[in-house]
Amino acid sequence: MPKPHLTFWYEFASTYSWLAAERIEALAAAADVEVRWRPFLLGPIFVAQGWQSSPFNVYAAKGANMWRDIERQCELMDLPPPARPEPFPQNSLLAARVATALPEAARPAFSRAVYRAEFTKGQPIADRVVIGEVLRDCGLDLAATLAAAESTENKSALRAATEEAGAQGIYGAPSFVTPSGELFWGNDRLDQALAWAKRES
Amino acid sequence: MPKPHLTFWYEFASTYSWLAAERIEALAAAADVEVRWRPFLLGPIFVAQGWQSSPFNVYAAKGANMWRDIERQCELMDLPPPARPEPFPQNSLLAARVATALPEAARPAFSRAVYRAEFTKGQPIADRVVIGEVLRDCGLDLAATLAAAESTENKSALRAATEEAGAQGIYGAPSFVTPSGELFWGNDRLDQALAWAKRES
Repeated sequence: MPKPHLTFWYEFASTYSWLAAERIEALAAAADVEVRWRPFLLGPIFVAQGWQSSPFNVYAAKGANMWRDIERQCELMDLPPPARPEPFPQNSLLAARVATALPEAARPAFSRAVYRAEFTKGQPIADRVVIGEVLRDCGLDLAATLAAAESTENKSALRAATEEAGAQGIYGAPSFVTPSGELFWGNDRLDQALAWAKRES
Repeated sequence: MPKPHLTFWYEFASTYSWLAAERIEALAAAADVEVRWRPFLLGPIFVAQGWQSSPFNVYAAKGANMWRDIERQCELMDLPPPARPEPFPQNSLLAARVATALPEAARPAFSRAVYRAEFTKGQPIADRVVIGEVLRDCGLDLAATLAAAESTENKSALRAATEEAGAQGIYGAPSFVTPSGELFWGNDRLDQALAWAKRES
């Protein structure tokens, strides 16, 4: 019988994707579920919904409470206090392209390091210097990875991933999808998604 | 020292307010926190945000996944499977006026019974016959309660409650507010809100 697995769809500009990226490996290991990390871009999906920015900017009260909630969750999760990058949301295209280009095994550590730069140091993740430092800290080859990230093939792969996410009914991040297509939205559904993936296998 | 308390802001048209209404009394009793049930109307707050309907209707993928999620949560909570009322969202004005007019002690049972009529039987809660049946099942006086609900004073009280919710930064339902003003949004934050209320007292 194949090991149960769960696809983790994440967006680098998303605060709750960050929290999920911090939690998912330990929880998945405890549940004995394999996780497939799939970066995608929420921007095109939001634009199709009629938003020109994050709903946390479009709706001020919602945005204010999101930041307060992230502070509370960081405290509960023993994470450093969050830093708000300027602007928010960050342009996540470069980070998503790099994550797409990396071998799957390198994605979790790279992705978490990007999130830490962005949301605990407030660094601009669209900046090649910032991404370069993250790559170096992860022991990854800077020039080769950036070249792969910006190849025509890799750009198409990220576009295809975003289209695949939309086709699966994804409308926000993080989202979790089981092999049968069961879709769970939001960091708060991670535990239920893992349990469902286990039940399916 | 006063007993810790938490204000539970709920909207009768909201599916996740229903789930919170089903859970809150047992969880609050276990945490030894007193709950203040405050019905309000999300409609005016949504209109101020630029929505003419529920975000679950405005964004189709989000709406589809919400209903699927409610099915899953009902199963996990041992609730009957949900029935979707037509139209969704229901006009909740009459139910909110009645809940506002009732003595606080009568609100929880009445509110839960309205939610069950709406979301497990799919009944139209704007219908005076449906609300009348709920009142009767709760052992409440039909004519006197409806008269109180539709008094000028009570209508003003509900308008004031909705304005108070907005002034506290509330942008969705359910929301939970501690005495110090700490705001938690969503059924998934109920446990954290109770813990916070306890810490404050």
